[in-house]
Amino acid sequence: MLFCARMEVRIPHDLDPAFVQSLKEREKARAIELQQQGKFLHLWRVVGQYANISIFDCASNDELHEVLSSLPLFPYLQIEVTPLARHPSSIA
Amino acid sequence: MLFCARMEVRIPHDLDPAFVQSLKEREKARAIELQQQGKFLHLWRVVGQYANISIFDCASNDELHEVLSSLPLFPYLQIEVTPLARHPSSIA
Amino acid sequence: MLFCARMEVRIPHDLDPAFVQSLKEREKARAIELQQQGKFLHLWRVVGQYANISIFDCASNDELHEVLSSLPLFPYLQIEVTPLARHPSSIA
Amino acid sequence: MLFCARMEVRIPHDLDPAFVQSLKEREKARAIELQQQGKFLHLWRVVGQYANISIFDCASNDELHEVLSSLPLFPYLQIEVTPLARHPSSIA
Amino acid sequence: MLFCARMEVRIPHDLDPAFVQSLKEREKARAIELQQQGKFLHLWRVVGQYANISIFDCASNDELHEVLSSLPLFPYLQIEVTPLARHPSSIA
Amino acid sequence: MLFCARMEVRIPHDLDPAFVQSLKEREKARAIELQQQGKFLHLWRVVGQYANISIFDCASNDELHEVLSSLPLFPYLQIEVTPLARHPSSIA
Amino acid sequence: MLFCARMEVRIPHDLDPAFVQSLKEREKARAIELQQQGKFLHLWRVVGQYANISIFDCASNDELHEVLSSLPLFPYLQIEVTPLARHPSSIA
Amino acid sequence: MLFCARMEVRIPHDLDPAFVQSLKEREKARAIELQQQGKFLHLWRVVGQYANISIFDCASNDELHEVLSSLPLFPYLQIEVTPLARHPSSIA
Amino acid sequence: MLFCARMEVRIPHDLDPAFVQSLKEREKARAIELQQQGKFLHLWRVVGQYANISIFDCASNDELHEVLSSLPLFPYLQIEVTPLARHPSSIA
Amino acid sequence: MLFCARMEVRIPHDLDPAFVQSLKEREKARAIELQQQGKFLHLWRVVGQYANISIFDCASNDELHEVLSSLPLFPYLQIEVTPLARHPSSIA
Repeated sequence: MLFCARMEVRIPHDLDPAFVQSLKEREKARAIELQQQGKFLHLWRVVGQYANISIFDCASNDELHEVLSSLPLFPYLQIEVTPLARHPSSIA
Repeated sequence: MLFCARMEVRIPHDLDPAFVQSLKEREKARAIELQQQGKFLHLWRVVGQYANISIFDCASNDELHEVLSSLPLFPYLQIEVTPLARHPSSIA
Repeated sequence: MLFCARMEVRIPHDLDPAFVQSLKEREKARAIELQQQGKFLHLWRVVGQYANISIFDCASNDELHEVLSSLPLFPYLQIEVTPLARHPSSIA
Repeated sequence: MLFCARMEVRIPHDLDPAFVQSLKEREKARAIELQQQGKFLHLWRVVGQYANISIFDCASNDELHEVLSSLPLFPYLQIEVTPLARHPSSIA
Repeated sequence: MLFCARMEVRIPHDLDPAFVQSLKEREKARAIELQQQGKFLHLWRVVGQYANISIFDCASNDELHEVLSSLPLFPYLQIEVTPLARHPSSIA
Repeated sequence: MLFCARMEVRIPHDLDPAFVQSLKEREKARAIELQQQGKFLHLWRVVGQYANISIFDCASNDELHEVLSSLPLFPYLQIEVTPLARHPSSIA
Repeated sequence: MLFCARMEVRIPHDLDPAFVQSLKEREKARAIELQQQGKFLHLWRVVGQYANISIFDCASNDELHEVLSSLPLFPYLQIEVTPLARHPSSIA
Repeated sequence: MLFCARMEVRIPHDLDPAFVQSLKEREKARAIELQQQGKFLHLWRVVGQYANISIFDCASNDELHEVLSSLPLFPYLQIEVTPLARHPSSIA
Repeated sequence: MLFCARMEVRIPHDLDPAFVQSLKEREKARAIELQQQGKFLHLWRVVGQYANISIFDCASNDELHEVLSSLPLFPYLQIEVTPLARHPSSIA
Repeated sequence: MLFCARMEVRIPHDLDPAFVQSLKEREKARAIELQQQGKFLHLWRVVGQYANISIFDCASNDELHEVLSSLPLFPYLQIEVTPLARHPSSIA
C-alpha cells in the first residue's frame, strides 16, 4: 500500500552541531535500512530545499507511522502524508 | 531528470458528456503511451480526489512542458511541478 | 485501518433539481449501506456547512478510494483524507 | 454533544527534557481519565505528525473548553474545534 | 451556549432576480423571527462586504445547525462557526 | 460604533513567569475597566484556544487603537479588527 | 476617520456588455461625486490588476458601508477594509 | 526600471472558440511588438501551466499598467507584479 | 511614482530594550525626514496592529528600495510593496 | 535549461554578527562566481524585502540543486523553484 510523504527538515539553528551531525548520520543509516527492507520505495530531494518527496510501501497506517517516527530527524520533520491508490491508467 | 507533478482534474460540469468521455479515453491512451516511452515513470491516484501524483523523467523542462501539454485533459488540469534531484540517502 | 475524511458538498446551482434530488437519495442509501458493511464507522455533519467529517475503516488505500468514489455525490465532493494510526493514549 | 478537535503539539525544542517528559506522562494520564469519564470519545494519531484528531462529547462549549484546557500539554497545543451535529444519513 | 458565525452571502449572478428578491425577504423575516426567539443574539454587517458576523445562543450543536439551515439563503451562505465559552475577564 | 476584534495571545515561552503572571493580572484589570467604561461590550473565549472574540464600541478608529494598545498583553496579541455596521435585519 | 479599502473588480464574463458599460460609467460618476464630497480621499489603480487601493474619510463605519454599497459595481467588488489610525510618526 | 510579472491565463471554457483563437493571435502579436520595443525583456512559460513569468522594463508604474492592460488577454489574466531593484551582487 | 507599502513590525522579544528604544527613536526621525523630503507621502497606523500602511513617492524602484532599507527598523519589517498607477476615475 | 528561483533570506537575529558578515561576503563572492560561469543569469532584489528573484541556467535539476546548496547562505534561504520552458511568443 503506497503513500506519498513530503518531508521538510526544520532543524533549530541553535542545536548543538555535533548532535545535528549525529542525527543526520543516523537518519541516513535509517533511510537506507528502510529502503533495503522495501518499505521506503523512493526518496527524492526537492530542488532548492532541505526537503524530500518520498514514497512508502507499508502494510497499514500504523506501520507507516512507526516507520516515519523511527526516523532520527522525526522531531524536526514537517510531514504531509497523501495516501495513494492504483491509477486506472497506470501500466505498472 | 525527474519531476513530481501533482495534477488535479477540474472538468466544468456543463461540458458535453460525450466530449468528456472522449477526452478521458484519449487521456488514458496518451498516459499509457508516455509510460511506454519511459517518460511517465509513475502515476498514482490521490485517494478521495480526482487527482494524481505523477513522476516524469524528461530530458529538459521544455520536454516536460511538451509532455504535459500533450495530455488531452491539459486544459482542465491544475498542475504543480516540483523538480527533483538525487537524494544523498537514496540507494536507487 | 482508519481514515478521517472531511467532505464538502459543492453542487453547481444550475444542475437539474430532479437530478440533484435523485443524487441525494442515492447518496443516503449508499452511505447507509457502507455503514452497515462496517466500512463507514462515523458520519457527522459540520455545523453550518454542507459538509461532513467521516471515519472510514478500510483494508487498504485502494478500498477507501473505491468506497469514496462509489458515493453518488462523489463528482461534487471536495474530499481531504487523513490517514489515522492508533494513539498511544487511546483506551479503545 | 460532539466536537471534533484537531490538535497539533508544538513543544519548544529548548524546554527542559525532564519537564517535557513529565508533561507527556501527565497528558497521557489525563487523556485516559477523560476517556474513562466518557468525555473523550475517540483519539487518533495523524500519521506522520505529532498531532491527533479527537472527538469529544461535552454538555456545553464551556465544558469542552474546561476539558481542553485541563490537558497538561494545553499551552503547547494548536487546537481547532469543529462543532458536530447529527448527520441525516447516520445510522448510529 | 454561544456561537459566533461569520456568514458570507454568495448568490450566483444568474439566479432569477425575482427569486433572489423573495429569498432576501424571507431571509429577513426568518432572521427577525430567530432574534425574537432569543436564538439569534447579535447580527452585524461586515463593512464593505455582503457578509455578517452573528452571535447565536442555542441549546446544542444540533439546534444551531437547524437554525442555520433554516435560513432561506442557507444554500448560498459560506458559514464558519466558532464555539464560544465564558471568558474569565468578562463582567457580563 | 462597533468593531469585532479577534485576538490571539502568543506569549513567548521563555518570558519570566512572574512577569507573565503580572501581565495577565493587569490585562484582566484593564479588560474589566474597559467593560465598565462601556467601550468593551463583549468578550468571549474561543473554545480550545488562548484567543478571544471581542466587540468594542468606540467613537473612532483612533480611540479603538488607543484602547487595544492600552492592553498590557498588547505586545503579545495578534489582533484582527473587522469594522461593523448596522445590519438591516437586526432588531437591536 | 480614515479607512483603507482594497477593491478587486470581478465582473462575470457573461454579463450583458451594454449593462457592464453602463455600470462602469455610473461607477466612475459615483467615484467622482464621492471624491468631490471629500469622502473618497485617494483612489489608485493596482498595477496589472482590475483592482484599486482607496482611502476613505467617513464619520462612522455605517457611513463607510453606505458609501461602499452605493458604488454601482458593489455587487461585483471583493472589498477588504482596514481601519486606520493616526501614526505617531506622521507629520500630516 | 524592471518588474517581474507572473501571469496566469484563465479563459472561461464557454467563450466562443473563434474569439479565443483571435485573442491568442492578437496576444502573440502584441507580446512580440512589446519585446521589439524593449519593454518586454523576458517571457518564459511556467512548466505545466498556462502561465508565464515575465520581466518588463518600463519608465514608470503607469507605463507598466498601460503595457499590461494593452494585452488582448488582459481581461483573462491573473497578474501579480513584483517591483525589482538592482541587486548588490549582480554583475549585469 | 507611487507605491503602497504595508509594513508589519516584528521585533524579537529578546532584543535589548535600550537598543529597541534607540531603534524606534531613529525610525521616527528617519520617517519624519523622508516625509519632509516628499518621498513618504502618507503613513497610517493599522488599528490593533504594530503595522502601518504607507504611500511612497519615488523616482524608481531602486530609490524605493533605498528608502525602505534606510529605515532603522528595516531588518525587523515585513514589507509588501504594491506599485500604484493613476486611476481613470481619480480627480486628484 | 532555465529556472526561476525566488529566495528569501531569513537569518536568525541571534547569530554572531561577525559570522553573518562573513556569510554575506562569501555569498556575494559565490553569486558573482556563478554569474561568471553563466549558471546564474539574472539576479534582482525584490523591492522592500531581503529577497531576490533569480534566473538560473543549469544542465539538470541535480546541477541546480548543487548550485543552490553551494550558496553560503543556503541554510538560511527559503527557496521556491519554478522550472521554465520556452514561451511560444518569445523572440529571444
